[in-house]
Formats: sequence, structure tokens, C-alpha cells
Amino acid sequence: MNSLKERKTIRKYQSKDISAEMLNDLLEAAFRASTVGNMQVYSVVVTRDAERKKRLAPAHFNQPMVESAPVVLTFCIDLRRFSQWCRQRKAEPGYGNLEWFVTGAIDTSLVAQTFCVAAEEQGLGICYLGTTTYNPDKIVEILELPELVFPLITLTVGWPDENPLQVDRLPLEAIVHDEVYHDYTPEDIDRHYAYKESLPENHQFIAENGKETLAQVFTDVRYTKKDAEAMSEVFWQTMKKQGF
Amino acid sequence: MNSLKERKTIRKYQSKDISAEMLNDLLEAAFRASTVGNMQVYSVVVTRDAERKKRLAPAHFNQPMVESAPVVLTFCIDLRRFSQWCRQRKAEPGYGNLEWFVTGAIDTSLVAQTFCVAAEEQGLGICYLGTTTYNPDKIVEILELPELVFPLITLTVGWPDENPLQVDRLPLEAIVHDEVYHDYTPEDIDRHYAYKESLPENHQFIAENGKETLAQVFTDVRYTKKDAEAMSEVFWQTMKKQGF
Repeated sequence: MNSLKERKTIRKYQSKDISAEMLNDLLEAAFRASTVGNMQVYSVVVTRDAERKKRLAPAHFNQPMVESAPVVLTFCIDLRRFSQWCRQRKAEPGYGNLEWFVTGAIDTSLVAQTFCVAAEEQGLGICYLGTTTYNPDKIVEILELPELVFPLITLTVGWPDENPLQVDRLPLEAIVHDEVYHDYTPEDIDRHYAYKESLPENHQFIAENGKETLAQVFTDVRYTKKDAEAMSEVFWQTMKKQGF
Repeated sequence: MNSLKERKTIRKYQSKDISAEMLNDLLEAAFRASTVGNMQVYSVVVTRDAERKKRLAPAHFNQPMVESAPVVLTFCIDLRRFSQWCRQRKAEPGYGNLEWFVTGAIDTSLVAQTFCVAAEEQGLGICYLGTTTYNPDKIVEILELPELVFPLITLTVGWPDENPLQVDRLPLEAIVHDEVYHDYTPEDIDRHYAYKESLPENHQFIAENGKETLAQVFTDVRYTKKDAEAMSEVFWQTMKKQGF
């Protein structure tokens, strides 16, 4: 419990490798996560080759972890293996649709997160790359993902070479609702975000970006509506191309 | 690591309650999971009230755990709180789209799974209800979820009152791909599914359902194409209704 509470994302790694034995052990633990109907509708692509990492890097906006981590893992929704099994067993699968895309996305996420917990318990550091959902089309191509397979989550994994401070979180009461959703009053929002807004690093963040509020750094710089709409279109087209 | 490898889903619970203190402690650990841009785009609705559980039960096809578990948790994608904060801070949010729905779904799943790991470590048992993605419209209504909030995962949680055998998983090599996706040959599929198909409980499952193969139990009985297509439509309509 304490290790879960004290965890931090690690973006700098030692050059030390992760053994195949250790990686497989962690993946085995990860695959024990709950999965709908025990169907395990996911696959994991392991990238260790320097050339392949170099090709992946631009799809992740050249975040340096892609090339510096000993292992990059791409967790994919995979309805293909199960569908192939069905066809070989006189059964007609019907899994190329939104319902199974979402079910697969949940299954895949549970496996990725269980991997992280296990890896961190062993002293490894991990970083989630949100970029996977920005450029699924490019990742499909580089990892040669066929129909009914979709890249959802990328993790970089390695032995930590930094010890950053833990970042803030919203207070529990901002996130937990008793019995029904309790909508936020303006005063609730002020209270829940007060600590985040008080942090010196966030004041600096506002100044660096030449903005008036922290929220504007998100909406105008980091995560704009325009970018999200363009990425939504790529995401949707890639879903269609992959048969969902 | 061993506890992760030995875990099992628990569907029968003692009548013993879970204290608010313990639940909050577990949720606090869960909210330490990675989250895109530290935005925490999720909410959790806690159901303890017997009347509310009774109302939720049909949305979960009356699986008995909903009413017998002391605590039912619904993990929701939530772009609402963040968007409200933006609006109160002279920033115009653009998060009602597919990209943020998917990002929110990953964030939400990581939190749910971290909760499970923490809960199991404390001796609690959990069960994921896949039914949440089948009937999101009903759950939206019962939990009074407003725009930009979407129910993704439901967990039942309680003190175990059973000790089931652990179920099978596919061999590691069936799921892990080196460098690129290696498509499956018919022989691969036969090999990967051989153990699952050899299990006496699966032979019984085929017989009980009057089918010829285990795959047919999935495609013709448990998870049919027709059902998935109808549920995809409800899911899509609910996404639209909730503003994504």
C-alpha cells in the first residue's frame, strides 16, 4: 500500500538492461489481471531494438524516454487472436465493433497497470506515454499491427536514474461521490483546485507560457481543442482501418 | 509479485462491512496511478445504500454481487470537473471528443486496477462487472451522471466468503510479440488454446450449452455479434448524450 502511495513516474533510466526472465515474470503477473470472459483480448509488443525505438520515437513526439529506456512496451487491444481461434473452431466471431473495442481497451489498461505495479515493486521505474492515442496510425505501421489489433498504451521501463519529487493530486473529496454524482459548485471547484494553484512550480508554468491562469496553459498550450479534434479524427479513422 | 500472480476474482462476500476509513485509504492509493497531464479525468461513485444497489442490479443483469457486496464502485470518465475549472479560470476547454473519451477511459481503468491491487493486498476480494459497458445509459440515469461524465467500470468489493480455484490463462508466448506483431498460424492458435480446450470444466461448458466447440459457446451464447452490435449502438448514443 505504501509503495503504491509513494510511487512516481520515472523518465530517466540507467543504461542497465532488464533481463528477459524478469520481463516475462512481470508480464505473467500482469496477465493475471481481470479480463472479460477470460478472453484476454490484448497483446503486448516488446521493443528492445535500437533501430525500432528510433522509428517509434517520432510517433511519441520524440520524448527522450523512447530511445533511452531499455524496454518499450506497447499494449494493444487484440480481438484478432480470439477471432482466429473462433474461425478455426467452426464459430463466427462478431468482435469488430465499438463494444469490443471498449472492452478490449479496459482489459488492455488493466494489464498495463498491473505490469506497472509489479515492475515498481521490483524497483523499476515506468512512464506512460499519452502519445499512443495521438498517433495510433503511425504505431500501427511501425509495429506491423494487423486488423483487429489497436495500439492503446505505451510504457517505457527501466532502472531509475532520477528521484523526482512526487507530484500533487486533487483531494479525495474532489473525486469521490456518495451514492450519486454531486455536481460541483463554483466554490467546490475553487476549493478542490486551491492546492494545485498554490504550487510554486505551477506559478512558474503560467509565467513560462505567458498565460494568466494555469487552466489556460492546458487549454491554449498543452491540450488544445483544435489538436484534440484533429487527433479524434485520426483515432476514428485508425479504428475503422483496424476493423472496429 | 506472488500475490498478483495468485489473485482470483471473488463473487461471494461476507456480510461484514468495509470502513469508510479503509475505503478512502484504498482510493487514495488508487489516485496515485499515472494520469495524463496530471488532470485526473475520472470520478468514483460509491454505492452502499441497499435501495440504490437494488436499482443498479438490473443494469448489471442482476448479477447477485451487486446486492450482496458491501460496496459497489462505479469508476467514471470525468471531463466535467476539469472543464468547469477551466471555465472558472478564463480558459475554454475542448474535451468533449473521442480523443479525451479514450484518454479518460485509460486514466479511469488505471485507477480502478490500482484500487483492486491495493484492496486485494488488504485481504478484500473484488469482481469487475463487464455489464457497465452494456448498459451505460441506465447507469447514467441511476447515478445521475451529468454531461462529460461516463460510467466505464463497476467493481463489487467485500471480504471474501469463497476460495475458488484460479482460472487458466493463455501461455505467455500467445500474447507477447518481439519487436513487431507476429501473426498467428493455424498451428500457433491450436497450440496456444490447447490447454484451455483440455480443461474438464470447458468440456462441461460445451456440453451444457449443446455446442460442438468452446469457441461456439462464446460466439453463439455468451458474446454474440448481434448483442455486441446492439450494445455498440447504445454505447455510441450514450457517448453522444454525455457530450463526447
